Amino acid sequence: MTFMQTLRQRWTDSGSLVCVGLDPEPAKFPARFEGDADAVFGFCRDIVDATAEYACAFKPQIAHFAALGAEAALERLVAHIHSAHPGIPVILDAKRGDIGSTAQRYAAEAFDRYGADAVTANPYLGGDSLQPFLERADRGVVILCRTSNPGGADLQDLEVAGPGSGTPRPLYQHVAATAARTWNGHGNVALVVGATWPEQLREVRAIVGDMPLLVPGVGAQGGDAEAVVRNARTADGTGLMVSSSRAILYASAGDDYADAAARAARALRDSLDAARRG
Amino acid sequence: MTFMQTLRQRWTDSGSLVCVGLDPEPAKFPARFEGDADAVFGFCRDIVDATAEYACAFKPQIAHFAALGAEAALERLVAHIHSAHPGIPVILDAKRGDIGSTAQRYAAEAFDRYGADAVTANPYLGGDSLQPFLERADRGVVILCRTSNPGGADLQDLEVAGPGSGTPRPLYQHVAATAARTWNGHGNVALVVGATWPEQLREVRAIVGDMPLLVPGVGAQGGDAEAVVRNARTADGTGLMVSSSRAILYASAGDDYADAAARAARALRDSLDAARRG
Repeated sequence: MTFMQTLRQRWTDSGSLVCVGLDPEPAKFPARFEGDADAVFGFCRDIVDATAEYACAFKPQIAHFAALGAEAALERLVAHIHSAHPGIPVILDAKRGDIGSTAQRYAAEAFDRYGADAVTANPYLGGDSLQPFLERADRGVVILCRTSNPGGADLQDLEVAGPGSGTPRPLYQHVAATAARTWNGHGNVALVVGATWPEQLREVRAIVGDMPLLVPGVGAQGGDAEAVVRNARTADGTGLMVSSSRAILYASAGDDYADAAARAARALRDSLDAARRG
Repeated sequence: MTFMQTLRQRWTDSGSLVCVGLDPEPAKFPARFEGDADAVFGFCRDIVDATAEYACAFKPQIAHFAALGAEAALERLVAHIHSAHPGIPVILDAKRGDIGSTAQRYAAEAFDRYGADAVTANPYLGGDSLQPFLERADRGVVILCRTSNPGGADLQDLEVAGPGSGTPRPLYQHVAATAARTWNGHGNVALVVGATWPEQLREVRAIVGDMPLLVPGVGAQGGDAEAVVRNARTADGTGLMVSSSRAILYASAGDDYADAAARAARALRDSLDAARRG
């Protein structure tokens, strides 16, 4: 099964649009992990096992492993998800982008070394920099379009005149249109659009048809989960991976951290589900 | 000494504008490294030691280490450069870019874990995504502006209407202007502009004053080293880190690989030097 097939099947099987982000920050781990040399893997594994029922995808963020020198923990975590929770795709959040020959090495990092089903990628270097990811047709390429941070506006909202287009449009809409028209030849493209910009989610959805959108920014960043679903779900009520990291991972600093994470993931699933039925 | 001070001192001391890129590809290593578990470090160390005399900077490209699971070799390599060749700055070519809280982890990866003096960064997520790098005032932040690959044109050449500006200009010029005006408060910003676009190098130089430019794309990618110097050197004949990787690293596949790398680095130094005197 390709990433896209796995994701669509998982939306159906789980009834959930929740993507659980895995951003390990040891300073926030429960006290029981103090002095545990394997804390990064152990904590993330516990969160994965507790939240899998409510997840349409898992999204480990690689900087949080790399800053700790915890590449081995990340390798084991992806393997654990695949073996313990088959059918839930893993998106490696790496936002890579480089010239083609280097991008090929980043594709090897994400897909071959870590075994990720999909990877996030940065479009600033253009189509040939995405090609080594795109040509892995069984994997997903989740391209940054309109990010959730305040500075996302700095470049992404600039009005650009598209070739042959009389009407200027924001850069992020140009990226969305190029992704749908040019980069999606293998049908394996998704886009990142932040929950903090519900209007822009609606505009991107209008451009890209039923292409999946990865939507960070609910919870800690202040995005409104219901507005995301109202503005950007597809006709069948899916099309969204609404990502939450800190609000799930660190729902409790006590010994009930796994149960608290499960409750937070379930609550987000339920509110997204209510919004798509409402 | 800050990255900028170290770099300017090194330009003076070495008389060289050559940045030696370190992109280890084991399939291209000389036969003597076959079966050597420490080949990645050993090969790169030999190249570093052979070319240091002709280098204003070293630039390890992290994807080439990450795809091999060779993070430990990269850590040792940066430490080796600092101890064996003090005064030559190390630029970690990682092209990172993410929301602020994650960018902070990437800054920790580059500066604290690997000990890099500077890091390359992607501007697509805007100013707040660069802030965690920029506020490390002793380190350098080398921001992508106009990249050397053909697809660089896809986004970077789009005409954008700047705020309050009546005249549209290409996105890469907007990035250059924003870098010079807004992001360089600590004086630690440099830009990536590819050697494959000499006209655009001239335009960026006109925008950014004497800001250092990292210029990849000579050698294997076809850029003209002399045109780079003619179009983009500063008044004092510096301001450039002209990066070459494959043409130096793999100048010979025989046992003379280190000598051949030194000859290639010296030849590039000499041609750049002739161009700035010419």
